[in-house]
Amino acid sequence: MKYPPLIIRLPVWVGNLLKNYPSPIANPDERMHLVVELARQNVDKGMNGPFGAAVFDETGNLIAPGINMVVGSGCSLLHAEMVALALAQKSVGRFDLSDGGRWHYQLFSSTEPCAMCLGALPWSGIGKLFCAARGEDAEAIGFDEGAKPPDWVTTLQRRGIAVERDLLRQEAVAVLRDYAARGGRIYNPVPSRG
Amino acid sequence: MKYPPLIIRLPVWVGNLLKNYPSPIANPDERMHLVVELARQNVDKGMNGPFGAAVFDETGNLIAPGINMVVGSGCSLLHAEMVALALAQKSVGRFDLSDGGRWHYQLFSSTEPCAMCLGALPWSGIGKLFCAARGEDAEAIGFDEGAKPPDWVTTLQRRGIAVERDLLRQEAVAVLRDYAARGGRIYNPVPSRG
Repeated sequence: MKYPPLIIRLPVWVGNLLKNYPSPIANPDERMHLVVELARQNVDKGMNGPFGAAVFDETGNLIAPGINMVVGSGCSLLHAEMVALALAQKSVGRFDLSDGGRWHYQLFSSTEPCAMCLGALPWSGIGKLFCAARGEDAEAIGFDEGAKPPDWVTTLQRRGIAVERDLLRQEAVAVLRDYAARGGRIYNPVPSRG
Repeated sequence: MKYPPLIIRLPVWVGNLLKNYPSPIANPDERMHLVVELARQNVDKGMNGPFGAAVFDETGNLIAPGINMVVGSGCSLLHAEMVALALAQKSVGRFDLSDGGRWHYQLFSSTEPCAMCLGALPWSGIGKLFCAARGEDAEAIGFDEGAKPPDWVTTLQRRGIAVERDLLRQEAVAVLRDYAARGGRIYNPVPSRG
């Protein structure tokens, strides 16, 4: 087959960072602290997109971390949330994290999901979404959030996915601003010549 | 690292199928024929989701094919469009297929994109989307298309992505109906206990 496979593999520094955290992480604020730290180190380690995410179970066991790998991997789909969801599903061995509603998993994201990641949530079997920075905080440094429904929180809730916003928002915003101040790449594709 | 990597690799039969097609495939209808055939064989070879996709360049060179791999790979993100985009970006070596607007690539999809795939398109650098079956055709056999904007064609066009619908729609609908008639799995996750 002439089409080479795509391998989604976390860098070694992620494993090293995780060693600094207890397991389980009982407190949602502490879980978000880890996620914001993933975003911060993703910038520090190679000026990758300033976004982190992670899937936890209800008691705070980390199922899988995620970081934005768009620039490093050359794949526009690899937003932090997508990486965390894909690796969490790989880890539990099924495409529906909830396994028909039997399990409750939570996605923590350092910034509210873009239109793609938002669309991915209902297919993933995730039960709750926690966000730090708001979509407009990412837009303020130039990132495009895509065509999200204005009432996106309600659209998720209607599908059984709870949403909690603004956990450690200021810490996450600081990571975004630092990335912009250091000249980080805002990698929205330019519309092609159609 | 305790988090195993996710490897997105096309099965061998895809390569065998491609041998039956010329390169380039000059005619858009013929390109869609290949994509519908990918959907059909994806069902025949293992009752995987009845969806196919492919990225072509303007002259009809196949950059990468895609098939729905949700059930087989245990990953809810691996819709046919996502696989085709990811492997096309891998193949050309960049996350922006258009490379800053210099190149025009086309995504062919056997069914109109769901909310996630729709959100992924502007990040991919794709210039034009061709669809066979409509979203409502997938919904008619029980698949959920997600919270798409009602004017999704316009939202893409506003971002410089042209859309052409209904190429070989009936052929693609036949694949969907055959999948349903054979008891194919409709794999929308059940909302979790939140």
